Amino acid sequence: MAWNTNLRWRLPLTCLLLQVVMVVLFGVFVRYDPEADAHWKEKRRGNISSDVENDFYYRYPSFQDVHVMIFVGFGFLMTFLQRYGFSAVGFNFLLASFGIQWALLMQGWFHSFHNGYIFIGVENLINADFCVGSVCVAFGAILGKVSPVQLLIMTLFQVTLFSVNEFILLNLLQVKDAGGSMTIHTFGAYFGLTVTWILYRPNLERSKERQSSVYSSDLFAMIGTLFLWMYWPSFNSAVSNHGDAQHRAAINTYCSLAACVLTSVAMSSALQKKGKLDMVHIQNATLAGGVAVGTAAEMMLMPYGSLIVGFICGIVSTLGFVYLTPFLESRLRIQDTCGIHNLHGMPGIIGGIVGAVTAASASTEVYGQEGLVHAFDFQGSKKNWSPSMQGGFQAAGIFVSLAMALVGGAIVGIILKLPVWGQPADENCFEDAVYWEVPKDQEHTAYHPEDSTLKPVAS
Amino acid sequence: MAWNTNLRWRLPLTCLLLQVVMVVLFGVFVRYDPEADAHWKEKRRGNISSDVENDFYYRYPSFQDVHVMIFVGFGFLMTFLQRYGFSAVGFNFLLASFGIQWALLMQGWFHSFHNGYIFIGVENLINADFCVGSVCVAFGAILGKVSPVQLLIMTLFQVTLFSVNEFILLNLLQVKDAGGSMTIHTFGAYFGLTVTWILYRPNLERSKERQSSVYSSDLFAMIGTLFLWMYWPSFNSAVSNHGDAQHRAAINTYCSLAACVLTSVAMSSALQKKGKLDMVHIQNATLAGGVAVGTAAEMMLMPYGSLIVGFICGIVSTLGFVYLTPFLESRLRIQDTCGIHNLHGMPGIIGGIVGAVTAASASTEVYGQEGLVHAFDFQGSKKNWSPSMQGGFQAAGIFVSLAMALVGGAIVGIILKLPVWGQPADENCFEDAVYWEVPKDQEHTAYHPEDSTLKPVAS
Amino acid sequence: MAWNTNLRWRLPLTCLLLQVVMVVLFGVFVRYDPEADAHWKEKRRGNISSDVENDFYYRYPSFQDVHVMIFVGFGFLMTFLQRYGFSAVGFNFLLASFGIQWALLMQGWFHSFHNGYIFIGVENLINADFCVGSVCVAFGAILGKVSPVQLLIMTLFQVTLFSVNEFILLNLLQVKDAGGSMTIHTFGAYFGLTVTWILYRPNLERSKERQSSVYSSDLFAMIGTLFLWMYWPSFNSAVSNHGDAQHRAAINTYCSLAACVLTSVAMSSALQKKGKLDMVHIQNATLAGGVAVGTAAEMMLMPYGSLIVGFICGIVSTLGFVYLTPFLESRLRIQDTCGIHNLHGMPGIIGGIVGAVTAASASTEVYGQEGLVHAFDFQGSKKNWSPSMQGGFQAAGIFVSLAMALVGGAIVGIILKLPVWGQPADENCFEDAVYWEVPKDQEHTAYHPEDSTLKPVAS
Repeated sequence: MAWNTNLRWRLPLTCLLLQVVMVVLFGVFVRYDPEADAHWKEKRRGNISSDVENDFYYRYPSFQDVHVMIFVGFGFLMTFLQRYGFSAVGFNFLLASFGIQWALLMQGWFHSFHNGYIFIGVENLINADFCVGSVCVAFGAILGKVSPVQLLIMTLFQVTLFSVNEFILLNLLQVKDAGGSMTIHTFGAYFGLTVTWILYRPNLERSKERQSSVYSSDLFAMIGTLFLWMYWPSFNSAVSNHGDAQHRAAINTYCSLAACVLTSVAMSSALQKKGKLDMVHIQNATLAGGVAVGTAAEMMLMPYGSLIVGFICGIVSTLGFVYLTPFLESRLRIQDTCGIHNLHGMPGIIGGIVGAVTAASASTEVYGQEGLVHAFDFQGSKKNWSPSMQGGFQAAGIFVSLAMALVGGAIVGIILKLPVWGQPADENCFEDAVYWEVPKDQEHTAYHPEDSTLKPVAS
Repeated sequence: MAWNTNLRWRLPLTCLLLQVVMVVLFGVFVRYDPEADAHWKEKRRGNISSDVENDFYYRYPSFQDVHVMIFVGFGFLMTFLQRYGFSAVGFNFLLASFGIQWALLMQGWFHSFHNGYIFIGVENLINADFCVGSVCVAFGAILGKVSPVQLLIMTLFQVTLFSVNEFILLNLLQVKDAGGSMTIHTFGAYFGLTVTWILYRPNLERSKERQSSVYSSDLFAMIGTLFLWMYWPSFNSAVSNHGDAQHRAAINTYCSLAACVLTSVAMSSALQKKGKLDMVHIQNATLAGGVAVGTAAEMMLMPYGSLIVGFICGIVSTLGFVYLTPFLESRLRIQDTCGIHNLHGMPGIIGGIVGAVTAASASTEVYGQEGLVHAFDFQGSKKNWSPSMQGGFQAAGIFVSLAMALVGGAIVGIILKLPVWGQPADENCFEDAVYWEVPKDQEHTAYHPEDSTLKPVAS
Repeated sequence: MAWNTNLRWRLPLTCLLLQVVMVVLFGVFVRYDPEADAHWKEKRRGNISSDVENDFYYRYPSFQDVHVMIFVGFGFLMTFLQRYGFSAVGFNFLLASFGIQWALLMQGWFHSFHNGYIFIGVENLINADFCVGSVCVAFGAILGKVSPVQLLIMTLFQVTLFSVNEFILLNLLQVKDAGGSMTIHTFGAYFGLTVTWILYRPNLERSKERQSSVYSSDLFAMIGTLFLWMYWPSFNSAVSNHGDAQHRAAINTYCSLAACVLTSVAMSSALQKKGKLDMVHIQNATLAGGVAVGTAAEMMLMPYGSLIVGFICGIVSTLGFVYLTPFLESRLRIQDTCGIHNLHGMPGIIGGIVGAVTAASASTEVYGQEGLVHAFDFQGSKKNWSPSMQGGFQAAGIFVSLAMALVGGAIVGIILKLPVWGQPADENCFEDAVYWEVPKDQEHTAYHPEDSTLKPVAS
């Protein structure tokens, strides 16, 4: 069984097939939300005082920030590898572009389906980007070891599972998770870790030389880091209730992220014998604070609560990079290229816990009578819920997300292990030249071109 | 006739002269729009319910996104050449900074002129950026082959012609073109192609070595690509009617661009014998979907309609890069450095056609009675227009834009061909060192410094 | 006294100590502004017509733009040095993350303190970013010559002094300074220049080779330049009054910056004997126009007034880089790494003067009766103020800012001169490897590792 990485037929056919299916399904199902429909004013004239009441103006700036996080943020964050920049940015671009379409459909069927149609507006666009965010997270674990065809397959399945999990959490368990600590980060991270565990490559040290950064690749990665860091307040507030909830979510995220930078820097320096800083920590651990307030940001976490969450996560995340990642790789055979367990896994679980505790300790004193009902939607079917019940369901959400991630990741990992997707040989991992025409300045002897006499590595 | 590229007097004098003229004309003509004037509240108190009704809050976020597209988007997209990054970003910065001032005046005279004054507000800023967008497009065709003085001259003329063409389309033909498929992309592309055709350099292969990318220059270019791609929904919705039209334009553009990525990747892989992806396609063809819904994005194109447009444009654009660009260069003597014909030319025309068809098939069933009137402004002088009339005028707009571009481009090309603007010799094209002090690490033997004994290349 | 640059204990302890103090002070003092509090609707129901009246929707887009300017703008602008990119981006990230927390407290005590609590909302976040902006400015003067511990110490003191100065200007002198020509730029620049004057290093030529750029570092710096340039209209309008004032501030800044680019390019070319452009000028002088309308942007400066201000500042700033910076270094022993005197110092003072003159010449004819009161807050304690009084106080604000900067900078400089903060030796300035683990490709002989036998350089 020789691995063939020539994707000339597989990649085009996969892309075209998926895109044709999208066109057909959109044709059958997708229509504009009333607020994006030309009938808008006619139908709503009585109820709206002004054009500015259109949800577009509440959410569009946040949407654009989230969009930048998905495409530039995640894309450039993963360019830190010395010879994998094209793939990091390009494959992320590809999978996200497919994923948002599929997510509009999947999430639409679960949440925006009326009379046989999915009605989409700006909030759907944000949620589609969110869903794809969890795929970008998982991509971080398998970065450099898979083909773009595998990524598209993974996206197809992961978006599907994400939507099911999100439906269970938001609609059945009725949890709050506006910034997605559970649905996006916990799910995405453990899904990706399970996939990479299944795809374990025992001879990966053959590409070890390329698994590090160079000076300019680290600077490119900082573009990704900073756009993620700066726009995270928009991420966590983008789909919160209008008004004070969005406002509060932005403030809490801002605070948590600021604290996280200081403790990440502190740990990075403390854990190196000459006290020097490690770019990997600055690029990643500084973001953990945003992950960990994903659930609670819109709640009355209080600014100091946010600082504490950020404080803890900067430490946990940096410790993870120094001690846990090597352990996972050597003992548990989990090869986590970007260290997503440290940036999304642990902080995601912490975020779920913080959310559960914050919800459980909500009170009318802090929220006001109306505020409490409004914040947790304690009306209709949830009329008799207490904050502690909400907290309990929040906690359950963490376990559901974990279970879905582990089971789903295992299944998808097995599918991706099939030797037909054009994955690279162990000695060609982390190398753009496998799938890209690379400018001459970067070509060199390290890349091993396809050779029919080359014996494949047992996977 | 020896070409002299020392711009010590020509560039400063051109810049200062143009800027002095701008100051004088602004002094005579430009005042604040009432919504940006300190009298605002006094005069409007009766009519406005709140500060948030100020047009600033409807359009400012979109404006900033468009601003990023013009300066970072176009600027970095053109840094793909190995030794032309300073010029790509720097000259784009220069021409756009001049262009927006001149566009405020030109467009102001046509659209915002009352009682002897031009009144400017945020919508004027967006339109000025749009106008300059067409110059950035044209710049792509002549990238590397002209001096900054030539670019300023071209900007002066192109902004003028753009404004005339825009006036004919929007005011005389009364077409809709919010995202500028016709006014910006079709006009800009064919204008630029005509200019580069006139400026044909038969010995350009002397700089062939520099007409390719290096690894880091391709990554810098992806910064431009992604910011263009991400913010294109803002571009196409920025000047649409408040409310559902802006909302819909953003959704349509988001969908079209997503589809376009998949078909661009598919074609890029399918057209290379080893199935490898070409960065040029990823950097450019993925954007064609945004161009091609420029006219119809605010109409009821439907999400699946947008996907189809993006689907087609990704294919057309990539095919153009592979087959048409070499043909244009070898047979028609059109040297199109960035392949703007593939990214803006053909998709722009497709966009005009899509707009015409979408307008012609508009109905009260889809738009509602009020919605149809509102969307196409079927009132006042257009009171008796039918959708099919609108479609006919839309189609006419394409031809007018093409005619203006070809005639205008030919005239401007002839002016730029005069040997007094400091253009580089054929062997020094695509080289920053001609006009910039370049750090030592980049200096090398390939650049041919000015030499009085150097025989000029016949142009 | 051997200088030890191993920060293993000093940096972590400083970070953790500061962060713990922040947590405690936030716990004691910081609460949500009513508009970010869950009680919002309950308490305000009577007064608000809609969620969109929440200040969040007026200011959040501007906030995010300002946030990008502080972290990506300033961070990348300083990456122009060939081997100091990690430190430029990373230390800026660190100091800003600490600074915004401390600024929330300091500015909160002065401006948002009620009943023992500081109430924070989106406007506080913007103001905290603004405050840190002045630290980023000062960082530019000492870039490459200090340790991260010194930067944190400087941030601690500078934020404190900034807040005091801001209180004096805004509350006691009651000046207008929405874009911070005086409070941010003048104060930040002269503070930084005084610090670097105190920290004078007579043997800095030992790192001369590293004090220049390479090709890619100049392109990275242009990312910073462009994001600063593009978002400056948001910076100058972010905290202006809702409505026409924000609108006007954006327009004026847009105009000023555009003019500034043309005159910067003109001077850059004119001052080099071969007429070539210097990247340093394009990266910096083009921004001076934004600094110089910081005070007057929200006033009725008129678009042509803005063009004139930008026109002048492009010239002054470029002249400063060519003639003044070398003079300051050789004669006044002021080593200004980034040339902040040219970008923030002189343009800041010009901005203060422009603001004073514009305020003094305000009239009811131009502003309207209500408009004048609204623009300058001529009510309550200022009821009897005339525009010329306002102008006088504005002028006084410049001197107060200068005095605070010089005195404060001297004190802080002396503190930073203590040989305990881990500052680098003269031959190791402008070198990432002192404080960072640097990828192998960048390691080379130029860096002089710590050596106990190394004789320290007298400071």
